[in-house]
Amino acid sequence: MDIQRHMEQALATLRTDGNYRVFAELERQCDAFPRATVHEGEGGTREVTVWCSNDYLGMGQHPVVTERMTEIIRKCGAGAGGTRNISGTNHYHVMLERELADLHGKEAALIFTSGYVSNWASLGTLLSNIPGIIVYSDALNHASMIEGIRHSRCTKRVFRHNDYRHLRELMAADDPAAPKMVAFESVYSMDGDIAPIKEICDVADEFGAITYLDEVHAVGMYGPRGGGVAEREGLMDRLTVIEGTLGKAFGVMGGYITGSATLIDFVRSFSSGFIFTTALPPALAAGATAAIRHLKTSGLERRKHQEAVAKVRAALDRKGIPHMPNPSHIVPVMVGNAAKCKWLSDVLMRDYAIYVQPINYPTVPVGTERLRITPTPLHTDADIRHLAEALSALWSQCALSRAVA
Amino acid sequence: MDIQRHMEQALATLRTDGNYRVFAELERQCDAFPRATVHEGEGGTREVTVWCSNDYLGMGQHPVVTERMTEIIRKCGAGAGGTRNISGTNHYHVMLERELADLHGKEAALIFTSGYVSNWASLGTLLSNIPGIIVYSDALNHASMIEGIRHSRCTKRVFRHNDYRHLRELMAADDPAAPKMVAFESVYSMDGDIAPIKEICDVADEFGAITYLDEVHAVGMYGPRGGGVAEREGLMDRLTVIEGTLGKAFGVMGGYITGSATLIDFVRSFSSGFIFTTALPPALAAGATAAIRHLKTSGLERRKHQEAVAKVRAALDRKGIPHMPNPSHIVPVMVGNAAKCKWLSDVLMRDYAIYVQPINYPTVPVGTERLRITPTPLHTDADIRHLAEALSALWSQCALSRAVA
Ligand SMILES: Cc1ncc(COP(=O)(O)O)c(C=O)c1O
Ligand SMILES: Cc1ncc(COP(=O)(O)O)c(C=O)c1O
Repeated sequence: MDIQRHMEQALATLRTDGNYRVFAELERQCDAFPRATVHEGEGGTREVTVWCSNDYLGMGQHPVVTERMTEIIRKCGAGAGGTRNISGTNHYHVMLERELADLHGKEAALIFTSGYVSNWASLGTLLSNIPGIIVYSDALNHASMIEGIRHSRCTKRVFRHNDYRHLRELMAADDPAAPKMVAFESVYSMDGDIAPIKEICDVADEFGAITYLDEVHAVGMYGPRGGGVAEREGLMDRLTVIEGTLGKAFGVMGGYITGSATLIDFVRSFSSGFIFTTALPPALAAGATAAIRHLKTSGLERRKHQEAVAKVRAALDRKGIPHMPNPSHIVPVMVGNAAKCKWLSDVLMRDYAIYVQPINYPTVPVGTERLRITPTPLHTDADIRHLAEALSALWSQCALSRAVA
Repeated sequence: MDIQRHMEQALATLRTDGNYRVFAELERQCDAFPRATVHEGEGGTREVTVWCSNDYLGMGQHPVVTERMTEIIRKCGAGAGGTRNISGTNHYHVMLERELADLHGKEAALIFTSGYVSNWASLGTLLSNIPGIIVYSDALNHASMIEGIRHSRCTKRVFRHNDYRHLRELMAADDPAAPKMVAFESVYSMDGDIAPIKEICDVADEFGAITYLDEVHAVGMYGPRGGGVAEREGLMDRLTVIEGTLGKAFGVMGGYITGSATLIDFVRSFSSGFIFTTALPPALAAGATAAIRHLKTSGLERRKHQEAVAKVRAALDRKGIPHMPNPSHIVPVMVGNAAKCKWLSDVLMRDYAIYVQPINYPTVPVGTERLRITPTPLHTDADIRHLAEALSALWSQCALSRAVA
């Protein structure tokens, strides 16, 4: 078999299907967020408004974060210089872990190099080290959770998305003596829907299962202190593990889990993905800590964020642009075709200085391609008007149907 | 089964075996490297000299790196704000990928959030997407490579460490038509020995196998431009993939692979661990680029590094402290017992202000516990003398035998 040809053919198929990805080359502008410079090759650049960032609250350019980071780089340098065990644990990691445990009302926390690694490593470690455990996994769980489960090779049952009755059926059919875990998310990133956390925890309790909740798209944004949907709903103590990221609403990079002191010590002690890798740079830990602290007391960003979301939805409604209804901050404008989705994105960038990446397979199923719009507290009313008008103009051109107002 | 009790028991066993890990809580000092402050709980702190950092050349505190990072944080903010596909690709990622491709003489490069993820995701993706491929893996390959191979579920053969004759035997016994990959490292991190890269590539060529080389502990430190051992030996074009980290000699954080444009595009397009995670902060990419560029032209750090290594070895020899001979910059002082190793480390810290983490299972096999000493260009002659004297004093106290001079 010719490996090179095999790879070329796989890439050619992606192109034919319209799923070949071209990354926009951005240069973020700290003082002008959500504006950015796009590099277009041959040294050409243009200014655009970013409408698809996961820096949901703009904390990635907030002075409490950026100033703290530059301060700690000047003080402690660039990287951590080692794995957590071998010279890589820094004072700022320890402070961040305390802050996170407090945020979620847990005894302890453990940070990882990303949210992806936190899910993969934690689920992988817990599920492969608890003999006979069965995991019940929501059908729409994130790739990082699926990979962690796959790694463990434990018995896995997939319950229909957000369907706690189906979860109950599956659990009832299994050995009552087997240890069990339910793994799910609060806000699902592509549809923006929210899990029935209480009902899922009730079912888990009924069968003595531990619970693992990914709050990656909720931390910082929901709950009075930004503890996520579980905080908002007063359910944090019902979850065995709450997992999150430092790379979205907190504006930096990294991931974490929180839970009992024993569980955290267990993952810390046995997880390959935690042990055998260079620790986060101290400045990233310090910057994330600053973001979390800020959002624990300031509700301003959360309020303005929700206002912007409501305004975008209303503006789209006025133009009849169909978007998936959901109770979160994610506004999926449905296109349903990879080629049209890419065309819309290209023309928005070229003619309207608007950047929204087309979302295609494998991130969403084929036939549900979309523009995933993420309003931030820093988008202005003029930005919102311009977005709705641009989409409206293009909507007719690519023969997409409008929502009935 | 009681999950909580199961975890408690597993942790208790670690403690009994002397393998329970306590992380030293450091605060690095940018202008005084390799000095650091240790936080000892209750607010107490002390100053120590770090002798086990993987910031091998001290680039993590070099002004070309730290100043570039603070500049880019001020300009572009803290995080990337998205996955590489969805608003997260920044100009500085693209420049870093170009720099890395050039460093290793390859057409293209792809960065990941860590060296761990680069190995796991690249091996996982390549091996699971090339039908029928057989991987030949060195017996001492790093956990991240093993996990990537495990993920793929492809056929795996393990060849004896650095034994290209055994590799040849294994390959000769397999179907000549099956696609094949040889996966190995250049500098092995715990023993500091170096692979016979040429001989392994010769065997691979004989059987038409592609080659994957982890140069994590060599990039920046070997070769006229810091391209690693393969550069030093003029062998870079013999490797299909060269993998490295930005978190050790380059002083920052992140990982990468380099290879043909098609291979890189293939991993970029199909790797879950690359696609579904927030991109590196632009400032990290820019800082790493600055480190790589600096080390491409400056040989000073590499020369002083090797000098420090030679001086440490000579000082240990004078005191009869046994260290594993090897041709690299890693100085493993063998202890062979987890409890003694920890005691040595504790007393070095407490009485001599020297920090060397004990290395125990699972990082090294039981019975080969060691102090892994990593000299840097910034350790002074006085530091080296003090280290050798401290070790010598403690060596007698814990009844360890000396090397015959
Ligand atoms: C639900 C979910 N979990 C985890 C992750 C991974 O987090 P990170 O970007 O910090 O790796 C993502 C997205 O990136 C996500 O959408
Ligand atoms: C051989 C080897 N490969 C890969 C890695 C992972 O690199 P990183 O620390 O950047 O995750 C390490 C150590 O951490 C290593 O020793």
